[in-house]
Amino acid sequence: MPDDRQLAGGWAVTHLGYRFRDESLLERALTHRSAGAANNERLEFVGDAVLGLVTAELLFHGRPAAAEGPLTRLRARLVRKETLAGVARGLGLGAHVRLGSGELRTGGHQRDSILANALEAVIGAIFLDAGLDPARTVIHRLLGNLLDGLPDDQDLRDPKTRLQEHLQARGLPLPEYVVGSVAGAAHDQWFEVTCRLPADGRMFPGAGASRRAAEQEAATAALAALVPGQVTPDE
Amino acid sequence: MPDDRQLAGGWAVTHLGYRFRDESLLERALTHRSAGAANNERLEFVGDAVLGLVTAELLFHGRPAAAEGPLTRLRARLVRKETLAGVARGLGLGAHVRLGSGELRTGGHQRDSILANALEAVIGAIFLDAGLDPARTVIHRLLGNLLDGLPDDQDLRDPKTRLQEHLQARGLPLPEYVVGSVAGAAHDQWFEVTCRLPADGRMFPGAGASRRAAEQEAATAALAALVPGQVTPDE
Repeated sequence: MPDDRQLAGGWAVTHLGYRFRDESLLERALTHRSAGAANNERLEFVGDAVLGLVTAELLFHGRPAAAEGPLTRLRARLVRKETLAGVARGLGLGAHVRLGSGELRTGGHQRDSILANALEAVIGAIFLDAGLDPARTVIHRLLGNLLDGLPDDQDLRDPKTRLQEHLQARGLPLPEYVVGSVAGAAHDQWFEVTCRLPADGRMFPGAGASRRAAEQEAATAALAALVPGQVTPDE
Repeated sequence: MPDDRQLAGGWAVTHLGYRFRDESLLERALTHRSAGAANNERLEFVGDAVLGLVTAELLFHGRPAAAEGPLTRLRARLVRKETLAGVARGLGLGAHVRLGSGELRTGGHQRDSILANALEAVIGAIFLDAGLDPARTVIHRLLGNLLDGLPDDQDLRDPKTRLQEHLQARGLPLPEYVVGSVAGAAHDQWFEVTCRLPADGRMFPGAGASRRAAEQEAATAALAALVPGQVTPDE
């Protein structure tokens, strides 16, 4: 009867198309910190960087007209936790993640962060096992089909930027953002911001867990008023 | 008489130990956005990711006992703007950067951000010209000797973390951080924070351009009072 390591190794072959030379790397990549000191956090650190480079390369070639800002936002979209967790679920990765008893009880196998981090760790393990080329091949297989689903570079400009461009294009003065209040303890703070349009004095409120988030929400409200039907991507 | 491209190509050979196959990539990497649309911003996006991976790999092997948090902070230290600008100066990179007239007048050739971004763009250009291996070789040559100068993993814990650990180790209640005021316009905000130690009610002020910076400063003050001689690395 095959042990966990053999099962995981077989899973990598069938689901990632990659056969590990050193299966202990894969075992480590599938070990959540709740399961012990020999866990996947350091491999996740490497895998995150591998993913960052391969997606940068993909977007550089795939979006030849995109400037650095949109490229950065497109990549954030591609590698965000929810996206990676969805890919991990499609691979049935959760069944191979080793968790501590606490995480097991609370359904850690299905938690986005645990799945996304384990997938990053597996990518880091492939890179350390055999270098960038096989890691790139696996990442292309896992994320390549998501590239077409990404928004246009233009749509990815954040609301504050698009509001500024909208006003500049019409020769109108730029918006002013004023913090109304900051409340809450260090671990969960709440910002209330007002976006004022000097042209007509209209004010649009926004709130969020960061000043940036609050300002983006206020800018989104202003855009919605100025450009009915304006679509705003989630940031 | 050699033109700029030939001069830059020769500089890459003598100072980076790399000969470009496609010297137009190097020319692009050395063109600041102030000099035109065909600038180095997209190459900087790629180079930043190459640098991120190669330094992650260096630290993974060089700091086998470091957890993900310290590895992340060590890498931030290694690739921060000031460090890269210093390396760029050592290479005489500024003399080859193409700037617009405005930047030229204001001494852009010596600006940290311009030098650091150009160096990242050159690294991205090497990666696109010939792949990860030559880029890795160049990065090791440029940054390898900085690895020994990095602080211990322990020293890299941020002041808030070390203050919390200091108190926990002594069974004391954890500090409370309270925002006193937030002032300033969106582009330059100023936070004033107080760190209170419930054990004896002592309060330590901190201020900074971000809430995090202000809290770290307050925690540093508390640490200095609790642990005289405590050294705090710059964050």
